[in-house]
Amino acid sequence: MSTPTLSSLTHEARRLLEHQNIELPSWAFGNSGTRFKVFTTPGTPRNAYEKLEDAAQVHKFTGAAGKVSLHIPWDEVEDYSDLRRHAENLGIEIGAINSNVFQDDDYKFGSLCNPDPKIRTKAVDTHKRCIDVMSATGSTDLKIWLADGTNYPGQDSIRERQDRLAESLRRIYDALGPDQRLILEYKFFEPATYHTDVPDWGTSLLHCLDLGEKASVVLDTGHHAPGTNIEFIVAQLLRVGRLGAFDFNSRFYADDDLIVGAADPFQLFRIMNEIVAGGALDPESGVAFVLDQCHNLEAKIPGEIRSITNVQEATAKALLIDRLALAEAQRSCDVLSANAILMDAYNTDVRPLLAELRESKGLAADPMAAFLASGHLEQIVAERVGGQQASWAA
Amino acid sequence: MSTPTLSSLTHEARRLLEHQNIELPSWAFGNSGTRFKVFTTPGTPRNAYEKLEDAAQVHKFTGAAGKVSLHIPWDEVEDYSDLRRHAENLGIEIGAINSNVFQDDDYKFGSLCNPDPKIRTKAVDTHKRCIDVMSATGSTDLKIWLADGTNYPGQDSIRERQDRLAESLRRIYDALGPDQRLILEYKFFEPATYHTDVPDWGTSLLHCLDLGEKASVVLDTGHHAPGTNIEFIVAQLLRVGRLGAFDFNSRFYADDDLIVGAADPFQLFRIMNEIVAGGALDPESGVAFVLDQCHNLEAKIPGEIRSITNVQEATAKALLIDRLALAEAQRSCDVLSANAILMDAYNTDVRPLLAELRESKGLAADPMAAFLASGHLEQIVAERVGGQQASWAA
Amino acid sequence: MSTPTLSSLTHEARRLLEHQNIELPSWAFGNSGTRFKVFTTPGTPRNAYEKLEDAAQVHKFTGAAGKVSLHIPWDEVEDYSDLRRHAENLGIEIGAINSNVFQDDDYKFGSLCNPDPKIRTKAVDTHKRCIDVMSATGSTDLKIWLADGTNYPGQDSIRERQDRLAESLRRIYDALGPDQRLILEYKFFEPATYHTDVPDWGTSLLHCLDLGEKASVVLDTGHHAPGTNIEFIVAQLLRVGRLGAFDFNSRFYADDDLIVGAADPFQLFRIMNEIVAGGALDPESGVAFVLDQCHNLEAKIPGEIRSITNVQEATAKALLIDRLALAEAQRSCDVLSANAILMDAYNTDVRPLLAELRESKGLAADPMAAFLASGHLEQIVAERVGGQQASWAA
Amino acid sequence: MSTPTLSSLTHEARRLLEHQNIELPSWAFGNSGTRFKVFTTPGTPRNAYEKLEDAAQVHKFTGAAGKVSLHIPWDEVEDYSDLRRHAENLGIEIGAINSNVFQDDDYKFGSLCNPDPKIRTKAVDTHKRCIDVMSATGSTDLKIWLADGTNYPGQDSIRERQDRLAESLRRIYDALGPDQRLILEYKFFEPATYHTDVPDWGTSLLHCLDLGEKASVVLDTGHHAPGTNIEFIVAQLLRVGRLGAFDFNSRFYADDDLIVGAADPFQLFRIMNEIVAGGALDPESGVAFVLDQCHNLEAKIPGEIRSITNVQEATAKALLIDRLALAEAQRSCDVLSANAILMDAYNTDVRPLLAELRESKGLAADPMAAFLASGHLEQIVAERVGGQQASWAA
Repeated sequence: MSTPTLSSLTHEARRLLEHQNIELPSWAFGNSGTRFKVFTTPGTPRNAYEKLEDAAQVHKFTGAAGKVSLHIPWDEVEDYSDLRRHAENLGIEIGAINSNVFQDDDYKFGSLCNPDPKIRTKAVDTHKRCIDVMSATGSTDLKIWLADGTNYPGQDSIRERQDRLAESLRRIYDALGPDQRLILEYKFFEPATYHTDVPDWGTSLLHCLDLGEKASVVLDTGHHAPGTNIEFIVAQLLRVGRLGAFDFNSRFYADDDLIVGAADPFQLFRIMNEIVAGGALDPESGVAFVLDQCHNLEAKIPGEIRSITNVQEATAKALLIDRLALAEAQRSCDVLSANAILMDAYNTDVRPLLAELRESKGLAADPMAAFLASGHLEQIVAERVGGQQASWAA
Repeated sequence: MSTPTLSSLTHEARRLLEHQNIELPSWAFGNSGTRFKVFTTPGTPRNAYEKLEDAAQVHKFTGAAGKVSLHIPWDEVEDYSDLRRHAENLGIEIGAINSNVFQDDDYKFGSLCNPDPKIRTKAVDTHKRCIDVMSATGSTDLKIWLADGTNYPGQDSIRERQDRLAESLRRIYDALGPDQRLILEYKFFEPATYHTDVPDWGTSLLHCLDLGEKASVVLDTGHHAPGTNIEFIVAQLLRVGRLGAFDFNSRFYADDDLIVGAADPFQLFRIMNEIVAGGALDPESGVAFVLDQCHNLEAKIPGEIRSITNVQEATAKALLIDRLALAEAQRSCDVLSANAILMDAYNTDVRPLLAELRESKGLAADPMAAFLASGHLEQIVAERVGGQQASWAA
Repeated sequence: MSTPTLSSLTHEARRLLEHQNIELPSWAFGNSGTRFKVFTTPGTPRNAYEKLEDAAQVHKFTGAAGKVSLHIPWDEVEDYSDLRRHAENLGIEIGAINSNVFQDDDYKFGSLCNPDPKIRTKAVDTHKRCIDVMSATGSTDLKIWLADGTNYPGQDSIRERQDRLAESLRRIYDALGPDQRLILEYKFFEPATYHTDVPDWGTSLLHCLDLGEKASVVLDTGHHAPGTNIEFIVAQLLRVGRLGAFDFNSRFYADDDLIVGAADPFQLFRIMNEIVAGGALDPESGVAFVLDQCHNLEAKIPGEIRSITNVQEATAKALLIDRLALAEAQRSCDVLSANAILMDAYNTDVRPLLAELRESKGLAADPMAAFLASGHLEQIVAERVGGQQASWAA
Repeated sequence: MSTPTLSSLTHEARRLLEHQNIELPSWAFGNSGTRFKVFTTPGTPRNAYEKLEDAAQVHKFTGAAGKVSLHIPWDEVEDYSDLRRHAENLGIEIGAINSNVFQDDDYKFGSLCNPDPKIRTKAVDTHKRCIDVMSATGSTDLKIWLADGTNYPGQDSIRERQDRLAESLRRIYDALGPDQRLILEYKFFEPATYHTDVPDWGTSLLHCLDLGEKASVVLDTGHHAPGTNIEFIVAQLLRVGRLGAFDFNSRFYADDDLIVGAADPFQLFRIMNEIVAGGALDPESGVAFVLDQCHNLEAKIPGEIRSITNVQEATAKALLIDRLALAEAQRSCDVLSANAILMDAYNTDVRPLLAELRESKGLAADPMAAFLASGHLEQIVAERVGGQQASWAA
């Protein structure tokens, strides 16, 4: 394949690429770190308003990041309608509302699965307040990730915790409005060490099937055991119609929350291939594409811009796959040809095509260069003096 | 806990332990190996009849291994009713029938998921013949493990293979008799390298739920990614009533098929703890306890005896857990006490208790010593001369 | 093996068990947690003096924990000679001094491997101050664990960082006194995500060999890739005479820092088997046995007591292995017998033997029960009010 | 970076790329498989002569595969001088000689580490015969990979096996001629399940350092634990001057022996980056670049051609890295810029540049298309009828 241009894409592929909208996490703009240390950075936002301002910069230069997820209570404000207006004035929307039920002392031994019914009710109520935030901000997705689990064998009953989880989720689900949904994230390990209450897609899906049609699974690309074929899970969840959202990021070993595409760009491409093949790139598909990353060492706004362009490149490559030829090679069990058709798209340099796409939308060809030249970084360093920098940790 | 005796067990616990019946795999008595080499051993059986004779020795000395799984076509015979009579004369029964759809050249690119409908039909027909063998031998379980998958990204469509799998399984399921069931095994990797068509419990369960009540999941303890909490899966499958059978063995890294309890005896204990807690030890529970092991280097009959005693020891320990005290410690979030109650049972030496149990059933206290003294090994070395040793490989 | 008693041990085995001395980490008595949350606990020490008091309780009831490692600057005090006297008055000694060069903003991009020579010098100087603390406290071991590494491919030169590391270590090594040594810990991952500067025993050993005879490797049992055979590394390092110390703990997936023996007690036994076989249990062997654990959820002093008894049990079992019979079975390639001899010792209940040993030393048979009955926990909760609880995090 | 051409390369980079010579494994042209099944293919070579003929095709079309490794006894012939002439007539040379001491019944419990000194001597003698083959064929490298290890804890003494290994290797090393060297491969697991006698680079390096300057380490890219940073090991072995050879292939989970670059092309690029940075691409560096792959499902000659082009692409990308800019970004700890410089080279499409390079050497721009059009595959299917197809398995 010679260097492709916009005209190499079908009309439909171009439409999908033009309208790709990736949600940003508000917490990526605050400080984050490891259990050993959270480093600070000049210019870091001090509140939800400033986070939205930084997020809006990412959208301004990429044209592909028009939503921002909030994390409650990290992004608590007095008036959520006001926050919504702030977002709209910045040209962006509020995306998923993420509940946080792991940083209060009461949750030491779990939230929705806690042996103590009073603490479970407290955690359910936190989710109900998140639903209120959704209503106030126009958000449609309640995203639930739980730190629940145990550290030692025997610490609690695995089975009873599942039963408590089902009951707690039911109470939350029943509080959803007609246009709201619940999306349930799974995670292989961390922070619990021995067992995690929602460790895999099977568990999340079982609960979603039980809850009803407004419940779907969240797949965080960093939340699997080594060697797991993630695109298989993508294909499977699309097949049963329950892939609610992605949390995109990268990992080398643990839940590293690195820039998506940084650790294994070929894996990201294979995932986007299943997305394209399954028709899930369409905004109507119900699959939300969300970043979930921590910029512990690197600059935060540029880190998000890089993430957006990485997803766009993987998407463009997936859209360039010659699917007719691929199907034919697959049918005839021609292993090398089928693989070569996939690799041919992967090995293509799609950056010129994406530059052309951006220019066609009135954006700079190189969003990173344009942002760095814009002076925003210097401005926030100068302006955001004093106050408490927002931090991912409690 | 001082050294426990039979009287340390409750009446019910003693009953469960006395009636524990673990199924042996016929193939454990034939030769097996790695892709590098299959070593042979004097005295190895040459056919299904001789395998049953060896299996009967394990039951004779342990009193806890009264069933044998067959593998078709490895155990093909002219007259399955005759084979059944042979088993009955030896005091054992035929357990699960395992289909083998991975050693015929036609299955190079898959069996039930193959792109070629003629090959899928061939594989379905093989399963129908297995159902005939079930009817002839009195077996109730059709155990399906598939080598299906792909080696390279793009080789075939992950999604379409799932659809083909669903359709093929439906055709097999519909051929089951009223008292027969289908149990579907999952495996994380191997022999396929890039993707496996039934890689995890979620996939197996989805297909089983779709098929109907006569379909359940097989959990092979060696078929998971590193770090997977297997007892969690046990608890989850028991919770939804779809744990059909165990394939017991051990692994250090890959699907090593080592003697169960050899690599991580504490894990085996934790699994048996969930079994006991979930009421699945009862023969009426519908959970089959099956060994699936390869004795590449060690003697085969003694290897199976060791496996049976390992499972018995883990079971006895699980039955000794002080469940009232455990529930109380769990309720009060007393992490160390809850863990200590579990570990107290694990650290107990239950071998004297099991020796007592065996003697109460008229068996030797030490099955391994009794078997080695019996002269059976010497006898088969002398008798089984000539012919082709049965082998796990094609 | 019937339940063994003290007299089941050889004279030498009993001597080794009686004199086993396991070093406690001061930081185990402070708060710790994950990147998500550090929970606090009533009674937690506020400074190094109070940590030593808690550590002394562990020694008082186990008789096997007579040393405490310090972590600088977590345990900084005005007068280290005074701290040493405090320890001596409590009946314990100061063990290894652990340097901390990962919580200062200057170390964001590394300490001994940092591209900036001024920061490297700062980190070297910190180690020189640790050597001063060693001299003041009577400690002989400078333990170095580095958080150095990179998060993204390309971030820095892997090769140049090794060269900087070698040069920095040389400067530290040259500052050691004649009876002091440097022990270098390796870690597979975390906090760096892409590459770690001392990721494996090979790297640590290469630097130690280069430095000289006063440098040895620290093996933390939680710092390996999944599937790593840790006892092999123990045997290998003993073979080349460079196993300096253990950091004992447990992990299920990441560096969980759980109670040693909690996740895989059989692995702990296999490690102690290599220790006994290699003659490294003798206090003269130069191998330091140190705990390195975090009690995020469980009570801290009891967590340490449990850790000590777990190591003692694994040691007692290793000392009970019939080594003559084992060597004979190994020589004749009798796989099952050799394995059975090992497992026979492992499956033995050594708790009565250890109770007898403790009573022979004038201690309570059950250190946990005796400690809990002592009132110390209630006392520290009452007394340690106000101030800042010591925490593992910065 | 716009699409680069040959003139984008420095003179030196072009020279290195032009002279890149990757060694082919003779066994890649025979059949191979898994422990479950070895599938056959029409046209498969029946002997070493035919394997060389197929290998020569790979060189004919790529111009970058001028050497072939042999495996003894798989490639045993009557007259090795004749085989050498056959190779020379085909325009290729004999590369490394691989010893095989794992398929004889005597090696059931090990070869160079076997408890039985007679078996160790037999294995040493096999290596001496390999050295004779080296002398007869002009090969300079004796490549040793051992299947030695144990399957169960206790089966043999880990420590004593190391001592036996050292002694056996010494006897082999002493038989090397002045221009011959020994290269020792390590492997994390398989076929042994519990412990492997040369499991990691540290062990291989220790033995090589002990043996002398003619011993170096072989790094097989598939022989590591999940999460291992392989390029770190490359950098470390280059730093100490003991990287003897690569065995290139790919894996998703186990030692899959897939086409190099098939599973993680970004990892291959990072490895080649360390090779270029360390000056090891130069043929004078002493680092041999060898493929070690099995084509279980895909066509064999095309599989090798694909492997060669994958390595060439990764190499060309590594040569395009702007190393001055990278060093500057690294020095200033500009994480995102340093990473971007690396990724910029990786994301470049170097296939046109390589097509240009091939044409400048008088080769077809697309080696795969040219080979498939050549009729060789059809010819060997027609000619190689009867006889026994060469197979990787015993």
